[in-house]
Amino acid sequence: MVAAAILPELATQLVVPVAAAVGIAFAVLQWVLVSKVKVAPEPRAEGGSASAVGAKDGATEYLIEEEEGLNDHNVVLKCAEIQTAISEGQTSFLFTEYKYAGGFMTIFAVLIFVFLGSIEGFSTKSQPCHYSVGKTCKPALANAAFSTIAFVLGAVTSLVSGFLGMKIATYANARTTLEARKGVGKAFITAFRSGAVMGFLLAASGLFVLYVAINLFGLYYGDDWEGLFEAITGYGLGGSSMALFGRVGGGIYTKAADVGADLVGKVERNIPEDDPRNPAVIADNVGDNVGDIAGMGSDLFGSYAESSCAALVVASISSFGINHEFTPMMYPLLISSVGIIACLITTLFATDFFEVKEVDQIEPALKRQLIISTAVMTIGIALVSWLGLPYTFTIFNFGAQKTVHSWQLFLCVAVGLWAGLVIGFITEYYTSNAYSPVQDVADSCRTGAATNVIFGLALGYKSVIIPIFAIAFSIFLSFSLAAMYGVAVAALGMLSTIATGLAIDAYGPISDNAGGIAEMAGMSHRIRERTDALDAAGNTTAAIGKGFAIGSAALVSLALFGAFVSRAGITTVDVLTPNVFIGLLVGAMLPYWFSAMTMKSVGSAALKMVEEVRRQFNTIPGLMEGTAKPDYATCVKISTDASIKEMIPPGALVMLTPLIVGTLFGVETLSGVLAGALVSGVQIAISASNTGGAWDNAKKYIEAGASEHAKSLGPKGSDCHKAAVIGDTIGDPLKDTSGPSLNILIKLMAVESLVFAPFFATYGGILFKIL
Amino acid sequence: MVAAAILPELATQLVVPVAAAVGIAFAVLQWVLVSKVKVAPEPRAEGGSASAVGAKDGATEYLIEEEEGLNDHNVVLKCAEIQTAISEGQTSFLFTEYKYAGGFMTIFAVLIFVFLGSIEGFSTKSQPCHYSVGKTCKPALANAAFSTIAFVLGAVTSLVSGFLGMKIATYANARTTLEARKGVGKAFITAFRSGAVMGFLLAASGLFVLYVAINLFGLYYGDDWEGLFEAITGYGLGGSSMALFGRVGGGIYTKAADVGADLVGKVERNIPEDDPRNPAVIADNVGDNVGDIAGMGSDLFGSYAESSCAALVVASISSFGINHEFTPMMYPLLISSVGIIACLITTLFATDFFEVKEVDQIEPALKRQLIISTAVMTIGIALVSWLGLPYTFTIFNFGAQKTVHSWQLFLCVAVGLWAGLVIGFITEYYTSNAYSPVQDVADSCRTGAATNVIFGLALGYKSVIIPIFAIAFSIFLSFSLAAMYGVAVAALGMLSTIATGLAIDAYGPISDNAGGIAEMAGMSHRIRERTDALDAAGNTTAAIGKGFAIGSAALVSLALFGAFVSRAGITTVDVLTPNVFIGLLVGAMLPYWFSAMTMKSVGSAALKMVEEVRRQFNTIPGLMEGTAKPDYATCVKISTDASIKEMIPPGALVMLTPLIVGTLFGVETLSGVLAGALVSGVQIAISASNTGGAWDNAKKYIEAGASEHAKSLGPKGSDCHKAAVIGDTIGDPLKDTSGPSLNILIKLMAVESLVFAPFFATYGGILFKIL
Repeated sequence: MVAAAILPELATQLVVPVAAAVGIAFAVLQWVLVSKVKVAPEPRAEGGSASAVGAKDGATEYLIEEEEGLNDHNVVLKCAEIQTAISEGQTSFLFTEYKYAGGFMTIFAVLIFVFLGSIEGFSTKSQPCHYSVGKTCKPALANAAFSTIAFVLGAVTSLVSGFLGMKIATYANARTTLEARKGVGKAFITAFRSGAVMGFLLAASGLFVLYVAINLFGLYYGDDWEGLFEAITGYGLGGSSMALFGRVGGGIYTKAADVGADLVGKVERNIPEDDPRNPAVIADNVGDNVGDIAGMGSDLFGSYAESSCAALVVASISSFGINHEFTPMMYPLLISSVGIIACLITTLFATDFFEVKEVDQIEPALKRQLIISTAVMTIGIALVSWLGLPYTFTIFNFGAQKTVHSWQLFLCVAVGLWAGLVIGFITEYYTSNAYSPVQDVADSCRTGAATNVIFGLALGYKSVIIPIFAIAFSIFLSFSLAAMYGVAVAALGMLSTIATGLAIDAYGPISDNAGGIAEMAGMSHRIRERTDALDAAGNTTAAIGKGFAIGSAALVSLALFGAFVSRAGITTVDVLTPNVFIGLLVGAMLPYWFSAMTMKSVGSAALKMVEEVRRQFNTIPGLMEGTAKPDYATCVKISTDASIKEMIPPGALVMLTPLIVGTLFGVETLSGVLAGALVSGVQIAISASNTGGAWDNAKKYIEAGASEHAKSLGPKGSDCHKAAVIGDTIGDPLKDTSGPSLNILIKLMAVESLVFAPFFATYGGILFKIL
Repeated sequence: MVAAAILPELATQLVVPVAAAVGIAFAVLQWVLVSKVKVAPEPRAEGGSASAVGAKDGATEYLIEEEEGLNDHNVVLKCAEIQTAISEGQTSFLFTEYKYAGGFMTIFAVLIFVFLGSIEGFSTKSQPCHYSVGKTCKPALANAAFSTIAFVLGAVTSLVSGFLGMKIATYANARTTLEARKGVGKAFITAFRSGAVMGFLLAASGLFVLYVAINLFGLYYGDDWEGLFEAITGYGLGGSSMALFGRVGGGIYTKAADVGADLVGKVERNIPEDDPRNPAVIADNVGDNVGDIAGMGSDLFGSYAESSCAALVVASISSFGINHEFTPMMYPLLISSVGIIACLITTLFATDFFEVKEVDQIEPALKRQLIISTAVMTIGIALVSWLGLPYTFTIFNFGAQKTVHSWQLFLCVAVGLWAGLVIGFITEYYTSNAYSPVQDVADSCRTGAATNVIFGLALGYKSVIIPIFAIAFSIFLSFSLAAMYGVAVAALGMLSTIATGLAIDAYGPISDNAGGIAEMAGMSHRIRERTDALDAAGNTTAAIGKGFAIGSAALVSLALFGAFVSRAGITTVDVLTPNVFIGLLVGAMLPYWFSAMTMKSVGSAALKMVEEVRRQFNTIPGLMEGTAKPDYATCVKISTDASIKEMIPPGALVMLTPLIVGTLFGVETLSGVLAGALVSGVQIAISASNTGGAWDNAKKYIEAGASEHAKSLGPKGSDCHKAAVIGDTIGDPLKDTSGPSLNILIKLMAVESLVFAPFFATYGGILFKIL
């Protein structure tokens, strides 16, 4: 009667792990290709061919040092040394972080188990199902246990992916610098491939672990898909709670180091950025990786895991789950599988089909990646929707079942995918100095730092408009067509090209570090110019990536919110009730509270860093002259300690709010809080990111002096430039700490509410019950 | 059967106009007292007693000039001259504004008439009532005509009050300066009395016009109270739409002048604030009155009119309206009547019962006003609730009738009143430099402008927390007890001490101007110290006033939202529908869009001012030396033109959004938009105001150098101070333009939706109907 999907279950059982395996293999291949660049100096004796390393095309392969008659050996050794310092700083941070993350994970795992297990008094007896009337479901205790396991799995996957991403980033940074001696194309490919390792590894392992977990949990759950996919939501919570460490802790780390280094180095001592005399310079370079690689990776991985879980939990109480149709049930995973393949094809366009030869080809090459992946993926979605779904099915819509067609689900995923592209390009328009908004901000520096800040803030506010309309349109379409399932798969659509998105994003800090290493190793001006060009392109893509992350976070949060509401058994969230309205109002306040904490954290941590850097400059003789070495490790330690200590209050705000509101005020008020935090947080996140990005690039615009207008504002050190530097410093915590951290706020509160929904539905609202 | 109110209808018909008359008489009395100070020099010949003007207490009455042997005549003449310049600048602004406001009023009046008249095709036949089933109500065309008249009445009342307030402010500023020669107490009383003129005039005339309108409209409407009070809502719309000119236009005016004057004067030319050589100095002084007197006055008048209308429209479909109980129906007006009396008593504490003798008694005297008025008013509310309400009655609650007791309504009003006080004091804590938050911001100036901005933004975000909890608590209590009527009277409670609130608020710019006149007239350092002390206290109360205005705007908007929803016939606003959710998301974005416009407007207008001031300094020979006079009028014209031109886009956004959303997307989406704009806007408004206020006072803290800590940061001109000045300049548009303008955004959209609700309910949602 009900038409089945074309793709048989067995095929689905093959496609998903195979796609994951292909993704992982591709990541390993990229790693191998990057590792071919040697950081140890190559022996000169080897047939004298070292003067044109692996030369096929003599014209571009000559090293700049060769041309300039410099000693190659010293530079390579210096690069290796700096790379080691960055790597050590990073490892020290990671292990401190893991210690705390481990502790947090343990405590929270126990909490999940106790809260969820308590629902039926830790009974081990099976219970009647909530949604599939007449069927029997596994006991709440089993759900508690499996939710806890899923939580740990998600957390560990996130941590391992972050760890590997950071490793490859430090592995690649010095290699990119060395390759820059041969040409900008070589350096670009090295940095890009390294980014791809991170991207594919994370996308594929995320998919693989989820797939394995579903199958293993399925052995116990059998027919009880409702319980199975409820338990799986723990995976999303695990992934996202590690993002708290990555984004918030990482964000504080990177900006404490960056702001601290700049305030003393650039402002007080008048030495350039990345100068090896600055004691905070290694911490700053570590910070780039911590914030943009581990932070962004864990953030997007969290969104990916959460949107998959939100879709699965809604599907489990829709016709897919009720009728046990495995292939359509796995639709979210199929989308991700095809996404890996689409991104693989896309990557080849950057590394094999086209070649970057000139500096001004870098940014178009990166932007082309976004367009190609979106186009290819649109075909992929059509394919999956055709093969993986029955033509007609029903989706759970807050109490009722809604009839949906497969092409409607295609539209839902596609609208998310394309909305991501729109947000990306709008973000670029507002943050790249190729366009008038940033140029206007740069121009406002003529009248000083105050007008620069006023114009920058106004730009950030304005940049919210189109992304919100894009998100609103996606939500409206997907929500109207397929209720909350539609929103969840729209989020998945936006995240389906995550491998490419992350590759581009991780490329940024790698290039940034490469530039730092070139500066510190004292490489020639021409090499520095090449790494600067790589870095500048990375800045723009970083802003795009942030826009993307926020957009997907908004969709994911709404999907999670929908799943929470469904699971808590609510059918309306009526603004015209006092419970919901005050939830909405207080929820809309939370992003401000959270931002106040994170910004103050960066400020305090940066002040500590400033004191240490000043102390070293004042007490280490010969430091300014370059005859003595600074104590990098102390600065790394300050950033590490500050990031862990300072993330506790905002972390507690995020983790405790749903628990407190749900327990004391009940699910209606919590619904209001989630909706309020979502609609308010997404605005601040976008505006903060874009304001910061615009200030950064306004400063770069003045520094580069590429046009008549830009020249009239510069050069470096002019009053205009000083005003621009102030804006840039203010923007640092906005764009790299408080802004992106808000993604975590809105997602984590939603997924936590989802996981604890059965508890709140049973015991919540104590305060009102007492009154 | 139904217990009636103790107060008979006739008594109510007397109490309200008498209270209004008392308020107006009191205002006139204050004016007369202020006018006793002569700005024309008193003839020396008059019995030689001029050396101790009206001396009763020789010790304090001697003029400082007398002591210092200066010529009294010249100073008085100079003051009179500056006062005339400010007055002329102001009149030129007001008349330009009125031209545009008049045009706007005409167009909008036509729109109201056409939209509302069209509902039943301009039929002149009576129709069955919506809520009172079985009864006959007046035709929609009558409602359209009377709504239009009420709109014009509200607009004109607001304009006239603003005009008189500005007149008394310029009348008082030079008088305050002159009185400062006799002592700080005399100056304080002059400034405070002048503020009271504004406060009482506005509160009393607002009440009186509303009372007269209800009675006159009642002659036509007779038994149809539903139609009568629907028509009356036009009064709120009229009041609030003039606030658009006052707050937005005024905000742009004042900050264009202020920022423009500072950027050239303080930063480039290194001349002090209020230096008569600065061509923008008169525009700056005019701006203080335009922004803080006309702007704040029209804003609070709008809130007052709107909350009264929201309460009346809900009451008209509750038992008061259905049973035609006149006294309880007039409960909102009774509250306001008692408020005038309570404020009158409170004023006597400042002018008669206590005397300010020392500089450090000013701020406590002003704060005492808030506490006394709140305490006295609490008794007043209890009295009105006891006498003016039956013990039990029902209130319309989105489709159902809810039973309420009179003491519950007392709680609703009282919670609003006290929440206002809490918000006021929290605002003070975060913006006064007597407490650690502002001192921390000042301290962060050590590391430059960037950290100052970061800490200031964080402070603003943090300052949102407690006010939001206070508002949320008021809403929860009043909403739970008496639905939207409860929220409306809670807003009225917060506004019931409006006369005192406005008196304190208007005191600020009068003192500010007095200081400016003292500086420009070249008065001695000691006089300037006294006016500075008056001004400093005014700064703190201005911040409190802003907190108050925002808090009441939030409550008013919710009440209007509730009235809109009731009138549009909606019974739930469910977040779990795509229409409402995207409304919520887009609504939460509007404050950002609006702020982007207003901030950019200030920036652009200030740049124009900068160019003009620079031009004058460069082309007028002898200007810097003080031998030539600047061309003040051109600067006034620039601010005037900019404020009118630049307010069009944000004004259009506010006025068109409800019309477009309501017509195209229907009442559900519009409900979402209103709720989203409310919960998001209130946060930005509070944080922007407090951030700006904190920067202002951090700068003043460093300048004053009153403590060891403050001295270590100063003196004027130090690097710390320069960083603080940058923060202050950034804060100007935040605290005086974009922040307070958001009050108007959220209120005006809500009241406009309320007025047009019948139209949207009949014809709205065209887009969805087509699809």
